Amino acid sequence: MSGNAPIIQLLLTGNEIMSGDTVDSNSAMIAQWLGEQGLGVARKVTLGDDPAALQAELEQLARGSDVVIVNGGLGPTVDDLTAEILAAVAGVGLTEHASARTHVESWCARRGIIANDANLKQALLPAGCEIVPNPIGSAVGFQLTVHGCLVVCTPGVPGELRAMLPQVLANMEQHLGSFTPGDVLRLQTFGLGESTAQQIIADAGLDWPPEVELGFRAGAPQMEIKLTVRDRAHLAAQGWCRDALLTLFGDHIIGDGGTTLAQRVLALLAEQGATLATAESCTGGLIASMLTQVPGSSAGFHAGFVTYSNAMKASVLGVSEDTLAAHGAVSEPVVVEMVRGALARSASDYAVAVSGIAGPDGGTEDKPVGTVWLAWGDAQQVHTRGLCWPVERTLFQTMIAAAGLDMVRRMLLGLDTEPRYFKQRSQKHAR
Amino acid sequence: MSGNAPIIQLLLTGNEIMSGDTVDSNSAMIAQWLGEQGLGVARKVTLGDDPAALQAELEQLARGSDVVIVNGGLGPTVDDLTAEILAAVAGVGLTEHASARTHVESWCARRGIIANDANLKQALLPAGCEIVPNPIGSAVGFQLTVHGCLVVCTPGVPGELRAMLPQVLANMEQHLGSFTPGDVLRLQTFGLGESTAQQIIADAGLDWPPEVELGFRAGAPQMEIKLTVRDRAHLAAQGWCRDALLTLFGDHIIGDGGTTLAQRVLALLAEQGATLATAESCTGGLIASMLTQVPGSSAGFHAGFVTYSNAMKASVLGVSEDTLAAHGAVSEPVVVEMVRGALARSASDYAVAVSGIAGPDGGTEDKPVGTVWLAWGDAQQVHTRGLCWPVERTLFQTMIAAAGLDMVRRMLLGLDTEPRYFKQRSQKHAR
Repeated sequence: MSGNAPIIQLLLTGNEIMSGDTVDSNSAMIAQWLGEQGLGVARKVTLGDDPAALQAELEQLARGSDVVIVNGGLGPTVDDLTAEILAAVAGVGLTEHASARTHVESWCARRGIIANDANLKQALLPAGCEIVPNPIGSAVGFQLTVHGCLVVCTPGVPGELRAMLPQVLANMEQHLGSFTPGDVLRLQTFGLGESTAQQIIADAGLDWPPEVELGFRAGAPQMEIKLTVRDRAHLAAQGWCRDALLTLFGDHIIGDGGTTLAQRVLALLAEQGATLATAESCTGGLIASMLTQVPGSSAGFHAGFVTYSNAMKASVLGVSEDTLAAHGAVSEPVVVEMVRGALARSASDYAVAVSGIAGPDGGTEDKPVGTVWLAWGDAQQVHTRGLCWPVERTLFQTMIAAAGLDMVRRMLLGLDTEPRYFKQRSQKHAR
Repeated sequence: MSGNAPIIQLLLTGNEIMSGDTVDSNSAMIAQWLGEQGLGVARKVTLGDDPAALQAELEQLARGSDVVIVNGGLGPTVDDLTAEILAAVAGVGLTEHASARTHVESWCARRGIIANDANLKQALLPAGCEIVPNPIGSAVGFQLTVHGCLVVCTPGVPGELRAMLPQVLANMEQHLGSFTPGDVLRLQTFGLGESTAQQIIADAGLDWPPEVELGFRAGAPQMEIKLTVRDRAHLAAQGWCRDALLTLFGDHIIGDGGTTLAQRVLALLAEQGATLATAESCTGGLIASMLTQVPGSSAGFHAGFVTYSNAMKASVLGVSEDTLAAHGAVSEPVVVEMVRGALARSASDYAVAVSGIAGPDGGTEDKPVGTVWLAWGDAQQVHTRGLCWPVERTLFQTMIAAAGLDMVRRMLLGLDTEPRYFKQRSQKHAR
């Protein structure tokens, strides 16, 4: 940040955040968004729904900041105190804002309900405040300048907050005067951990330009790599870093921005005009669900089979009873037959199958919890791999479903490289 | 909180939390843990790795609290400032603690490495501080009483923090004198919004005991209702409130604790020794995935069918081409045939089917985005319902998958009441 960077503080409100019942991810969203514009957050304060404490805090924050972003407390219930608090700090009353009322009423009308008192409470805002439109929810945002500080009040529902951030930024710009916008470039990866990625970058001995900040966000199943420049004058350096990372991590990079594995697979299928079917045991429908979360997925995905019992693997997918008896459900021959069955029954071009032991029970000495077989391919060729990925049940399902999609992605791209997680997590006896 | 409740504040440190690259879940973990002991957190402050700001903040927090828990900044790198800051606030120097050094050295030895300067930095702690053992990581916790306030410094690694919390609580108890443990009772609901629930409670004119705190946590798909007492002397009042809520919301309550719809459905199936099959279009495997996230779900769930295209509804589930042509895929006759097909092909006792328009595309004037048909039943009887739930795609999928499970729950319980979301969201032409 430059020397005269504005002081921005956040006030997060809500008993559910204070008690830990809800993990606050909104402040991270705001900080990331501001970071992408080259702005930093100096301090965050979190308080429960206590009017006296909130008022004292907001008063103090406004006196010490150029901008305060308040998050939460815009809802219809008695716990939602933000309008009242801001009015008290500004020394004004609450008054009904016509445009806020119109917004609430039309929001209710679109849902076929009549706005009740609780809904209409959301139109009672500090006198003289400016509305920040909420394109999604019933509660508008609002802002007021107090003690020379711009106080912007935003909704606690993450999707509504996200939708409001561009307008918040524009309002901040108007209040602060212009600042140099930065830029963030994101790359999505699968199968790389943060420490491994850092080690690979360090080992490569790159002449990393100091104006490009390297960040990681480890998630499940994907890890995001972030390249931030605080000034767009450094876009060329950012591009250099991007190319360097593509060289280092190549086939582990799914795409840029927020690309998910499912989006990438569906895009590759669309390029070929092809379809994919799923045959799932241990992931229990999660691969299908990841695919169908993507709008328009019906073009590339027509059918999925969740065959959770041996009998269903046989009757629904035509896996032979002999194969099941000889090798068990978690085996290479069974996932191969699951792929063939899914191809035949769905008339899809490609299929992917998984069968494994998600735990916590069901493991044996030979096949401990975390053992899984994957198969993927088309009518001509079916590929397989056995892994052991012994983690907690839902994380196992998430990572294995993603690995299945990653196999399809690699197949569709014609990649013949071994992903790193194969080397690390292969079953002892596999292949 | 009672009048003489201790004031507990949290100080969260770290640039990665400040920038939003890491979402802080540690403070939620601490607050939940304390909440279960009947203790509340009054305020949380989050700061980056800025020594001057951290020192000023800790000074102020210590002067205004009985206990301050600091999280983060115990690690081996130059960014890890907590020991230095606490020493400065206490007006003491940093000194090597023999037991902390022994801990670091044996931690390194177990990993076959020699402790280097960075590791050993973790043994340099404020003079006179007490060690809080870290059973997992290399950095011990430590505490010191400053201005009459107990300042406890804890590690930022979640697993290490979790392992340290019992000792932190014991130390707090020693500092504060004994405190009365409270109790939290949670009820899980589906199909109720927060404002509706509050309205119903208000309208009931209950003589609500003031010692029972009522809280809501609106999630997707479930909403949690929380009854907190700060003293176990009030457990009877808490029980009274629980019974009152059961009477008011009865059939909308799924269970207590953290019960999910999928867990409840599987438990009800287990009571009958029965099985359920799923036939999904718009939810794309999500119902199956919700079920199979539950350990042991293989007892009650054997097969799921994701029939995303018309052709698959016909070939996989045997929905007649004529029905599809006459009524369209999103129609009552089609979901009825999907249920019958799923029952026949899986030999399950019950089945549930959904077909709808998740959007953002695919809506028509007659069947706008959000239109969905659900069917559920057994070989004897199939029930249906048409809804219109026009929300963002993944939220739609989440809510409809949950509604499908809720229908099965109600059927298995023999409930013949109408859930509230039926009344609010029925399709105009449905039934």
